[in-house]
Amino acid sequence: MAKVGIMGAGSWGTAIAWLLTNNGNDVTVWSIDEKEVKELDREREHKSKLPGVKLQDSICFTNVMEEGVKDKDFVVLAVPSPFTRETARKMRPYVAEGQILVNVAKGIEETTLMTLSQQIEEEVPQADVAVLSGPSHAEEVGRGLPTTCVVGARTKKTAEYLQQVFMSEVFRVYTSPDILGIELGGSLKNVIALAAGTADGLGYGDNTKAALITRGIAEISRLGVKMGGKIQTFTGLTGIGDLIVTCASVHSRNRKAGYLIGKGMTMEEAMAEVKMVVEGVYSAKAAMALAKKYEVSMPIVEQVNAVLFDGKDPGEAVKELMLRDRKTEHSELPWENE
Amino acid sequence: MAKVGIMGAGSWGTAIAWLLTNNGNDVTVWSIDEKEVKELDREREHKSKLPGVKLQDSICFTNVMEEGVKDKDFVVLAVPSPFTRETARKMRPYVAEGQILVNVAKGIEETTLMTLSQQIEEEVPQADVAVLSGPSHAEEVGRGLPTTCVVGARTKKTAEYLQQVFMSEVFRVYTSPDILGIELGGSLKNVIALAAGTADGLGYGDNTKAALITRGIAEISRLGVKMGGKIQTFTGLTGIGDLIVTCASVHSRNRKAGYLIGKGMTMEEAMAEVKMVVEGVYSAKAAMALAKKYEVSMPIVEQVNAVLFDGKDPGEAVKELMLRDRKTEHSELPWENE
Repeated sequence: MAKVGIMGAGSWGTAIAWLLTNNGNDVTVWSIDEKEVKELDREREHKSKLPGVKLQDSICFTNVMEEGVKDKDFVVLAVPSPFTRETARKMRPYVAEGQILVNVAKGIEETTLMTLSQQIEEEVPQADVAVLSGPSHAEEVGRGLPTTCVVGARTKKTAEYLQQVFMSEVFRVYTSPDILGIELGGSLKNVIALAAGTADGLGYGDNTKAALITRGIAEISRLGVKMGGKIQTFTGLTGIGDLIVTCASVHSRNRKAGYLIGKGMTMEEAMAEVKMVVEGVYSAKAAMALAKKYEVSMPIVEQVNAVLFDGKDPGEAVKELMLRDRKTEHSELPWENE
Repeated sequence: MAKVGIMGAGSWGTAIAWLLTNNGNDVTVWSIDEKEVKELDREREHKSKLPGVKLQDSICFTNVMEEGVKDKDFVVLAVPSPFTRETARKMRPYVAEGQILVNVAKGIEETTLMTLSQQIEEEVPQADVAVLSGPSHAEEVGRGLPTTCVVGARTKKTAEYLQQVFMSEVFRVYTSPDILGIELGGSLKNVIALAAGTADGLGYGDNTKAALITRGIAEISRLGVKMGGKIQTFTGLTGIGDLIVTCASVHSRNRKAGYLIGKGMTMEEAMAEVKMVVEGVYSAKAAMALAKKYEVSMPIVEQVNAVLFDGKDPGEAVKELMLRDRKTEHSELPWENE
């Protein structure tokens, strides 16, 4: 049994609290929002963010950060990406030397182009920072539907420790040393989900969507490998797997915003309609900046940016993608002598 | 403009006839079925197999094989996989030295474990055999929805020739030297589609399906690479791309048969209900035989075989997949020194 703190009571943080408690661990959930803490403590259900999932009586809810961090075997960071750095900074005084922090949010900081674990390591240098990612809608995890994820950590020991704590008969966990690859796949997928949603909005079919997903992960891989991620990671659960789930989901905000743009809305109109932060819009900018910095060709990301920020017609963007120079699928594969 | 013969007037053969005619080529379609030939010639529509797609007046239909092969710049083989070898054998007398044959069907011969292009090369040794594959529902291609495919050929020259003939603003074609990888991905995906359908039938969600697709392509890759295919191919349009489209499709017979099995039917009941050949059932056997021959671990393929042929409970099979030994996602990636 582990003592676990969870920072953030959104849908994912709440689902993880349920999962880890089910696995026999001692869980404390911290939220900055006092009203949310009281309601969770009383109702034992997050009615707006994870309705229908009964939260066990043993879970402690608190808005005192120290209670969620001190003396815990590890702490899960499940706050939205714009708040990760700030939350980490506030946690710093309570984090012991070598204490494990597991980040489960996804994103790239626009100004620094840093991943979330890089930000956490900068703010809490004494921590052993790990990540958990994969195709895992919180709603489905909370209903006990079979789900797979990957734990990325610097050391095998930390990864295997977290693997055995998280794993159950409905939650299979793999380990990986490639934290960077895991984080890049998770952040950049939202840009491709925007494109896939746009194709749906334009009335295109499964062929088009499969093409966008496959060529999308190809460009994410090209960038990610140049940045130091491992190619295998992009072909795995946190890369193509998470991308598939996001592009298929009717719940994804990114896919939905894309859909509305495909139907003729501007980016601003689509974001107003979706009513929540559409991460892919920010990731699109970050991806473009990274593509330039690392000199990688990312034609889908480029067209998404043109549609979002230059008012380009989405149908025209698809046509340009279809008619680019004729190419080999993988330029490094050799041909027979001719 | 090329002179093209197409063997087979199924949905894919018919869609390719439409596509190549649209691109300005001179197309002759051969079918073994005289009644089908007469109807196509009269109606200019394949009412049962590709309804709604108006076939151009310039397309010739014939049931004389020689007319579909002789003097053609290339010939497309679009007959169901069990008839590929026999059709190739009958074509042999009409095929010129070095004439290009493009196979678009998918399958592995149960008795020999040979791919279709290997069978064609054996039957027509004078031919230059190529393949075309990718996420491409015929119905969507026939409606002009954006689609991507890959041409695999022995030489760059043949691949690039076919690429320029097939490519249009709704049909993007990449080239590849990896014929074997293309064929293995296309054949083995149907086994994973059966598994994905079964998960749907059991009431599981997007997380489970994404896991099956991602881990499914991982095991297909392990086998395919050991057989001589290239890893990149399995991460591309003819590998993961085609697998995504098949697992998402409500039209896929393989997915549907799996769905019925997940709902509690036996394999025989499901096949009777689907009323057509469920290729995945045969590919499952071939995949198992190949896994043994090449000593590759294929846990999903193994469970699919147990459910299909040993009457194993599908829910139990999923549970076993979730609870296998704890693993790293990619065992070859190194960890930091500890």
